[in-house]
Amino acid sequence: MIRVRIDVGYEGSGFSGWARQPGRRTVQQTLEDALRPVLSLPEPPQLTVAGRTDAGVHARGQAAHTDVPAGRWAAAQDTAQRRLCGILPPDVRVHRIAPAPPGFDARFSALWRRYSYRVCDDPAGADPLRRHETLWYPRRLAVDDMNEAARACLGEHDFAAFCRPREGASTVRELLRLEWARPDRTDPALAVATVVADAFCHNMVRALVGALLRVGDGTRPPGWPARVLAAAQRDPAVPVVAAHGLCLEEVGYPPDDRLSQRALATRRVREAPGTRG
Amino acid sequence: MIRVRIDVGYEGSGFSGWARQPGRRTVQQTLEDALRPVLSLPEPPQLTVAGRTDAGVHARGQAAHTDVPAGRWAAAQDTAQRRLCGILPPDVRVHRIAPAPPGFDARFSALWRRYSYRVCDDPAGADPLRRHETLWYPRRLAVDDMNEAARACLGEHDFAAFCRPREGASTVRELLRLEWARPDRTDPALAVATVVADAFCHNMVRALVGALLRVGDGTRPPGWPARVLAAAQRDPAVPVVAAHGLCLEEVGYPPDDRLSQRALATRRVREAPGTRG
Repeated sequence: MIRVRIDVGYEGSGFSGWARQPGRRTVQQTLEDALRPVLSLPEPPQLTVAGRTDAGVHARGQAAHTDVPAGRWAAAQDTAQRRLCGILPPDVRVHRIAPAPPGFDARFSALWRRYSYRVCDDPAGADPLRRHETLWYPRRLAVDDMNEAARACLGEHDFAAFCRPREGASTVRELLRLEWARPDRTDPALAVATVVADAFCHNMVRALVGALLRVGDGTRPPGWPARVLAAAQRDPAVPVVAAHGLCLEEVGYPPDDRLSQRALATRRVREAPGTRG
Repeated sequence: MIRVRIDVGYEGSGFSGWARQPGRRTVQQTLEDALRPVLSLPEPPQLTVAGRTDAGVHARGQAAHTDVPAGRWAAAQDTAQRRLCGILPPDVRVHRIAPAPPGFDARFSALWRRYSYRVCDDPAGADPLRRHETLWYPRRLAVDDMNEAARACLGEHDFAAFCRPREGASTVRELLRLEWARPDRTDPALAVATVVADAFCHNMVRALVGALLRVGDGTRPPGWPARVLAAAQRDPAVPVVAAHGLCLEEVGYPPDDRLSQRALATRRVREAPGTRG
């Protein structure tokens, strides 16, 4: 068997998220079904993914892997990308498909995931051309206040306050970066959050963004999100913002010689619920 | 009567272009129908526009005007933008609606129109999130060669070679800027053309881009577009590229005290077919 790494982007609007669900159009099912004929497999291969995105969430830099019989890969490798491009619908693109370095695991080797969240606070509405990937927020947002609030949430914490809890799973994560900018000179009403953590619990980015927007519009003071975080239990005052503003931009991996070590370490802490997620 | 200027953006995919056509969904009809109740008019007002975009073409900086009884405007002005935002479908946004300075004519006062054309030359396909506004070109493009070819087309010329001809209308235009760049550090396969002219004949941007892509992929030498231009007749070897890569980004107007003068001058040359368009 050979492990193949697949880098993929998708527009989430037409998908019920990444994970296969009976009777739903999902990214996993769409990709696995396209890979089957390309790799001449009897059944669709099973993909392991870095970020299991929810319904409506987009990705530019999603990473996945699957294990394929070496002979099938050798026969398919020269044409695999071009054939996938022909078979896949236009809302999914495989940017690269290639043998993974030894020890690579798309999920467990990852050091961090980087998401972006786009918000437009122009009272007249968002740019129609990018409305599929931008939340329209009808109140003006103070980016400096949101950044002050964001800084107080950085570091390793139990993010239970910003997560949908899951039985037996830790909600401790390390938030490495959480900051807002207005990056587009030509569109001053666009504010984009960059959010990086070792991993995310369910709804975590969208709840963090929801809390920060409440600060940005003046409803809550900049100290509020850190207080919610410290309480370590789901707070109904924190709104979970819409999925369509969110995009998985990039997954970070260590150098090749540390992939196995990282995967082992991650598995160990994930399998110790309550201590580290 | 008071003249009102309306700045508008739209995603062109769902429209049969700007201009009203019976039985078709167009931007003009959508906007005029939304303005009627907002301005309490008995009939939809008639809009004059800077750029009559074709089916599928987008706009971020389209400008239009209409004349409204002064009393209706006075009653509507405080709520007009917010009400339009509520009435209009999400693929059209009015960014601003306000009284125009004296002498303003959205079409005839304009000094220039700026369009962008987005092309992705990644063999794996375009970013799914922006596929609605990006042409996928499966062959690698040499931006330097395209820019060399583009420079030779600048200035005032008869652009008949790049236009769908229209009886009795001049095809002389002044091409002020035509250049390609790869502006997105995070997406090296994206090439964007910036095209500015005093005005454009029908299909002119899409035919110029089509000719330059033939240079970029090596099919034609950089001197070819200028030779086609010099022949001054429609050349079937020039492909008209797809509408969805094209966006009207901005319309330039002179300072307020020269709006009337500019409108008069433009009308004069446009009404002298064959001499100046």
